[in-house]
Amino acid sequence: MIVTRRGAKEAMPSFKPLDPNFKRRVQDALGRQKVMRTLGIEIAALKAGEITLTMPYVESYTQQHDFVHAGVVAIALDNACGGAAFSLMPAEADILTVEFKLNLLAPARGDRFVFKGKVVKPGRTITVCESQAFAIRGSEEKLIATMSGTLMALLEQPGIRARPDAV
Amino acid sequence: MIVTRRGAKEAMPSFKPLDPNFKRRVQDALGRQKVMRTLGIEIAALKAGEITLTMPYVESYTQQHDFVHAGVVAIALDNACGGAAFSLMPAEADILTVEFKLNLLAPARGDRFVFKGKVVKPGRTITVCESQAFAIRGSEEKLIATMSGTLMALLEQPGIRARPDAV
Amino acid sequence: MIVTRRGAKEAMPSFKPLDPNFKRRVQDALGRQKVMRTLGIEIAALKAGEITLTMPYVESYTQQHDFVHAGVVAIALDNACGGAAFSLMPAEADILTVEFKLNLLAPARGDRFVFKGKVVKPGRTITVCESQAFAIRGSEEKLIATMSGTLMALLEQPGIRARPDAV
Amino acid sequence: MIVTRRGAKEAMPSFKPLDPNFKRRVQDALGRQKVMRTLGIEIAALKAGEITLTMPYVESYTQQHDFVHAGVVAIALDNACGGAAFSLMPAEADILTVEFKLNLLAPARGDRFVFKGKVVKPGRTITVCESQAFAIRGSEEKLIATMSGTLMALLEQPGIRARPDAV
Repeated sequence: MIVTRRGAKEAMPSFKPLDPNFKRRVQDALGRQKVMRTLGIEIAALKAGEITLTMPYVESYTQQHDFVHAGVVAIALDNACGGAAFSLMPAEADILTVEFKLNLLAPARGDRFVFKGKVVKPGRTITVCESQAFAIRGSEEKLIATMSGTLMALLEQPGIRARPDAV
Repeated sequence: MIVTRRGAKEAMPSFKPLDPNFKRRVQDALGRQKVMRTLGIEIAALKAGEITLTMPYVESYTQQHDFVHAGVVAIALDNACGGAAFSLMPAEADILTVEFKLNLLAPARGDRFVFKGKVVKPGRTITVCESQAFAIRGSEEKLIATMSGTLMALLEQPGIRARPDAV
Repeated sequence: MIVTRRGAKEAMPSFKPLDPNFKRRVQDALGRQKVMRTLGIEIAALKAGEITLTMPYVESYTQQHDFVHAGVVAIALDNACGGAAFSLMPAEADILTVEFKLNLLAPARGDRFVFKGKVVKPGRTITVCESQAFAIRGSEEKLIATMSGTLMALLEQPGIRARPDAV
Repeated sequence: MIVTRRGAKEAMPSFKPLDPNFKRRVQDALGRQKVMRTLGIEIAALKAGEITLTMPYVESYTQQHDFVHAGVVAIALDNACGGAAFSLMPAEADILTVEFKLNLLAPARGDRFVFKGKVVKPGRTITVCESQAFAIRGSEEKLIATMSGTLMALLEQPGIRARPDAV
């Protein structure tokens, strides 16, 4: 499902969605997250295997130096990984984050933030994604954090209901 | 600085703080985080190299299944790692999270949550910590997530000011 | 499947194996790894959800400071996670490492090394484990690295063969 | 030190080395690793902030399915991260891996393997890198693993010798 151009320095994978209605499915899933509304996170762009989210700076989510807390960045980056992964899953799948790792590169200080998630390797059960967080100040855009995450498709099996609490 | 009992199944390290006023220093640092108040995270216990935090269930921080979002759990677990690490740092140090990894074991569903952080290996520059998240429902306590994190002490060097944005 | 004693500081989970012959199954799987023999890694102890491995110091696996290379430590720690996880899986399952994260705490310098792996959370599909590496020099035992890892059970499904290359 | 082109989909950072002799320094450091020779790992390409390594398939480093063991892949990917990071460090620095996380995407099965490491964010103390492992079979090149790693520069400080065992 991944097409890489051998020898290309930055091989850009191109993905074919299993579900033609993947956009609405991803929008619905993220739209049902109350934390998205609470933090003002919005979908700025979405295609098969890739998503871009935005978030404003809100003072009530800061740590002791008035930077946005690393865990708040993790919320958006996890959703960027999850949205990208979910776009390639079959229509009937539910999704679950298995794990993620976050590297913090610079303080989350800015007027607003942009988060880009993409699928590195899709799979029947396990999908691996990466996402990047950028802080925007005026015309400056700075990479402030990177995440690598593992997402899991929950599918109905004969006699077993897919439930996010019974992995 | 770590004392392990050889052969003991669960070797419990015991730490000596460099700063006798470490408790107030940790309380102050976490107390200055607006996100702590916003989410209702509180310090329940604190000693050298170990901290316990609590957080209520708040619906506005949930994902699409009404569980608390993984990134919200990450906020508290990162603070549990940071609080534990900061307790062993010298009085003049500032602290920074370098990275963390979160494994999600069960949905964050409960009346309230408890987070336990402890230092695995303290160091002059780098401190490695682990933290665990538990969901409390009635009399049941369930392990829902584990974090391993790397924290860094920022110290003034001759001619170089310690700044969290100049690592 | 996990039994925790509420309030206990170091809740020690106790696991029931699904397969009564789990010991031989784990020994066989690790015994088939040529890298185990090449590096001299051996099973020192094994019970349901827990394993201990040992490895001698061998100069040909060192990095530029004559310490054992971090990736060699990763081989043994990954096997410690895998062995612990595999002990709780059903008899017909195959196993796969999804990901692991390694924190390096001290140089891998010693006469020999001990690796302890244990299951943190078993699951039908996903099992999360932790393992620790200790360097032994004379009578001294020092914690040098910690790993958290995600392992996956591969099970035959109707019409789908479990294959480690088709996740 | 990072130059990103705003709006570019794949912002390619460009790095200026602090040490004009960085190539020889990286070659020397990796060349002193006995594990490089033991596994047949070689430097195929090297520039500031980027390195490519190669490794043959060797049966004695395989796991139970005759794929190269994940930890062997970790050795090469850690060296790819370390080599990329070290190329941007000052001439007098020593280097240390703080942590890495490895995601396994496909079995390490191939005639030979290629590992590409690059710096994501250089820093005075902490450098964050990513590396990718590819399996080569005939004319096919397949992404099999990704690593994100944190590397640390050890610098002499007034009165403190830089030692990899005293972080």
